[in-house]
Amino acid sequence: MTSITALVNHQIRLKARPNGLPTRAGWDFTTEPVAEPAEGGVLIKTLAISLDPAMRGWMNEGKSYIPPVGIGEVMRAGGIGEVIASKSPAFAVGDVVGCTPGVQEYVNVPGDQFKRSGVFKIDTRLGTPTQWLNVLGMPGMTAYFGLLDVGMPQAGETVVVSGAAGAVGQTVGQLAKIKGCRVVGIAGGPTKCDWVVKELGFDACVDYKAGRLADDLAAALPDGIDGYFDNVGGEVLDAVMRRMNAHGRIAICGAIAGYDGPPLTMAAPQLILVSRLKLQGFIVSEHMELWPQALTELGGLVAGGQLKFRESVALGLENAVEAFLGLLKGRNFGKQVVQLV
Amino acid sequence: MTSITALVNHQIRLKARPNGLPTRAGWDFTTEPVAEPAEGGVLIKTLAISLDPAMRGWMNEGKSYIPPVGIGEVMRAGGIGEVIASKSPAFAVGDVVGCTPGVQEYVNVPGDQFKRSGVFKIDTRLGTPTQWLNVLGMPGMTAYFGLLDVGMPQAGETVVVSGAAGAVGQTVGQLAKIKGCRVVGIAGGPTKCDWVVKELGFDACVDYKAGRLADDLAAALPDGIDGYFDNVGGEVLDAVMRRMNAHGRIAICGAIAGYDGPPLTMAAPQLILVSRLKLQGFIVSEHMELWPQALTELGGLVAGGQLKFRESVALGLENAVEAFLGLLKGRNFGKQVVQLV
Repeated sequence: MTSITALVNHQIRLKARPNGLPTRAGWDFTTEPVAEPAEGGVLIKTLAISLDPAMRGWMNEGKSYIPPVGIGEVMRAGGIGEVIASKSPAFAVGDVVGCTPGVQEYVNVPGDQFKRSGVFKIDTRLGTPTQWLNVLGMPGMTAYFGLLDVGMPQAGETVVVSGAAGAVGQTVGQLAKIKGCRVVGIAGGPTKCDWVVKELGFDACVDYKAGRLADDLAAALPDGIDGYFDNVGGEVLDAVMRRMNAHGRIAICGAIAGYDGPPLTMAAPQLILVSRLKLQGFIVSEHMELWPQALTELGGLVAGGQLKFRESVALGLENAVEAFLGLLKGRNFGKQVVQLV
Repeated sequence: MTSITALVNHQIRLKARPNGLPTRAGWDFTTEPVAEPAEGGVLIKTLAISLDPAMRGWMNEGKSYIPPVGIGEVMRAGGIGEVIASKSPAFAVGDVVGCTPGVQEYVNVPGDQFKRSGVFKIDTRLGTPTQWLNVLGMPGMTAYFGLLDVGMPQAGETVVVSGAAGAVGQTVGQLAKIKGCRVVGIAGGPTKCDWVVKELGFDACVDYKAGRLADDLAAALPDGIDGYFDNVGGEVLDAVMRRMNAHGRIAICGAIAGYDGPPLTMAAPQLILVSRLKLQGFIVSEHMELWPQALTELGGLVAGGQLKFRESVALGLENAVEAFLGLLKGRNFGKQVVQLV
């Protein structure tokens, strides 16, 4: 076996804050030697990295739910890795773990950072590493919490989800169908729309890129909307709000439409009062108490073949930036991951 | 006693929909003879009429939580009246009732409209007719429901209420103090601000007319805001949202800032996600199940002298329009009523 100190860690670091859509020039590719873990810590080799729209938000200066990634820092990202050296009784060499490795090949996590970095052992019999980044990971938990705790769909109600073919959206829609709801997706382009209807069993899907959003929503939603799971914000949120039924619930999960420019306004906030709506923003990592219950339910649905999901896999760290830029343009189909080789 | 058919009913009817701020020319003053009640119905003589900012919204065309007042119809308003003729076993002559008489001196309510018009007997030992339009009526119930069910203030948290010297705001702030919160009001002008601090015991009050809203909120709220009871919308809501703490709750009760022109946008909806806020619109009349509990608690606080309140009384139907226009400009101080003589 190669000695640890002979390993080289390839990394991607944030070089400059983007002004609008990020470009490849906004990151530096660096290498550094790999060190033995400190007393109480572990050294993790990254197996797969999760790429999320939220990462675009972390690149901006300013107040958010977590601090921005600093200039010169390794780009923050969740992932799955394998413990290759351990000086902690909590983890053994060979353990496969969920963690926040960042966009790099190796990460040393000190013992006092296990909780903050979210290092936890995963059961590889339940799913592959990339599934643990998808329906069994943050996107699945996000879908579960936002839909069931915030959106509170009742059987017979109508649920709409934007980013319907994305990692979160695909699970939201299928869960809502399982709960007995009529489900309408919003996605970009006919291929994604066809897929969520034909493969995932959504009742309909509106292509927001077709340029007739208000009309197409009206046609697909003759009885209005009771629950909306919002992954995008902006004009799509505005259009959906106009079709919400009285006492509708809106789970605000993401606002990708506003990540690349000046913050977007909301066109008609008076509808919150007129339609007695509830809008609630949430970050799933603040609701870890729900994780075991969600994992049990989602794991059972995956094992039983009731939940389908799709992933877009980029191979190798060198393709991570391009995959991320594609994600921001909606080129991914299902969960976007980077698999390290 | 004068015979019923000899009575004349003076009325105020909506003549034209306002474009911006309403004017006196937008209403017609009419008279019509008073009729005996139909079988099963009651004839009510109006004692006091409630003037509410929401009435401005009812004058606009378009979708809202109830249909707009029609052109030529008696202007809709809540009130308190005395039954002066009854052909219903449910009410006797002399009963004092809460109802929706509209801006007129007499109203005939058919038996099948008792529920829709909200006709209910009130206990005049608990409060005067105008108190039944204030802390024991819709404004009090609105404060109670919005604060406790939507805002969910915990002892030690900071609560902000706009329209702080208004009918709803004065009760919201005092209830939040009773629940152990730090309370900061927002009101127009130093007189109202002084009153809510010195008389009602708010911890501070920001004068939104002073032109330094963001700075003054920052100074009054060094630890941010956990619960906000919004009676105004617009720029005040925008400014408050920027100071909300994580997991803050916003009860959307009114949007008087947007009643007189094109609907206002929300400047920074991304804060719903960034600060994990909950915003909820509500109409208290949809939560009548809470009424008995609220009335018991508020009635006890009034009887015990723990809740203070103020009202602005206009005398006579002929002064109703001017009082309403004054209300829209914030000239009232506490609950605005019209007392008929």
